[in-house]
Amino acid sequence: MQIPKEAKKVFSGYIFNIWHWQQEMFDGSFETFEMIERRAVVDIIATVGNKIITLEQEQPARKKYPALPGGMIDKGELPINSAKRELREETGYNCKNIELLDEDTGKGKQYFHQSIFLAKDCIKEGMQHLDKGEKITVKLVSYDEFLQLCRDPQFAAPYKLIFKMYECLLDRNKKEDFRKKIFG
Amino acid sequence: MQIPKEAKKVFSGYIFNIWHWQQEMFDGSFETFEMIERRAVVDIIATVGNKIITLEQEQPARKKYPALPGGMIDKGELPINSAKRELREETGYNCKNIELLDEDTGKGKQYFHQSIFLAKDCIKEGMQHLDKGEKITVKLVSYDEFLQLCRDPQFAAPYKLIFKMYECLLDRNKKEDFRKKIFG
Repeated sequence: MQIPKEAKKVFSGYIFNIWHWQQEMFDGSFETFEMIERRAVVDIIATVGNKIITLEQEQPARKKYPALPGGMIDKGELPINSAKRELREETGYNCKNIELLDEDTGKGKQYFHQSIFLAKDCIKEGMQHLDKGEKITVKLVSYDEFLQLCRDPQFAAPYKLIFKMYECLLDRNKKEDFRKKIFG
Repeated sequence: MQIPKEAKKVFSGYIFNIWHWQQEMFDGSFETFEMIERRAVVDIIATVGNKIITLEQEQPARKKYPALPGGMIDKGELPINSAKRELREETGYNCKNIELLDEDTGKGKQYFHQSIFLAKDCIKEGMQHLDKGEKITVKLVSYDEFLQLCRDPQFAAPYKLIFKMYECLLDRNKKEDFRKKIFG
């Protein structure tokens, strides 16, 4: 979903903005419509040999949950640089190659730009550099273990990726294609 | 996710509210945390014989999408009454029996209360009564067709239900249990 051009921002938060506009209804009358915009994030599928980097993440006021490396894009930062930075900070790994794999913009009344990057052949270059709001354990898992993560209701990842993972579990060809995309 | 008791509402919208609170970080310092609250909704799995009622829905500023009967809970309305009302308005059907099947409250930084009701043995009692922001075509589908809906990225339903439907596609026993729950 896109925010209409004529919409006005009625609230600016740290992570969420709220937009209003006058929407023409099916009978020609107008009503105020509302959408939220969530600060853009990146997620990274990062490979080390035939493994994928996953995180067990803890944040204040939230139970432990599995995730991929990633986070919010800083003001003025390019998504690809955000992906490299988050990967380095959260895992200690750098990557040789990084490319945009997929994007999503949310659904219905929520505009939420999510970029999914593929970082191949990562190499451990140092320690994690975590925020004071992060506790992260890095786990390297096989492709099959990675796909099973979509079945954990706590898995924090873009829904578009979660559905792609479910589709790979349902369809052998999709699974093989995605494996080739990630490791090929 | 729940909104912490000490949180303060900093914005009240039509559908979304925004809440802030001071959150203690892992190093003992405090930061302002933000969550959104989305107006509660109901969704209804409604049966007619061995079929399930689905909708093809159109709203202003949004492409056509598949959905279940349902909608936002009115102020002061009980979720179960909201479910009966939405079913009647959107489809023209009334139900003999209705029960709460499942609930969800969202994920991460979003509090979104969603109630999923099961309405058995529905009977067509009249015409639809649609809002000026709705165009709805009612479609009765088989259980197998219903389960396949989760694979459509535009399907508007609680994520908890979408994941349950995917699990039924992956696991024969879960599929049979859910069929018994809905039609038994």
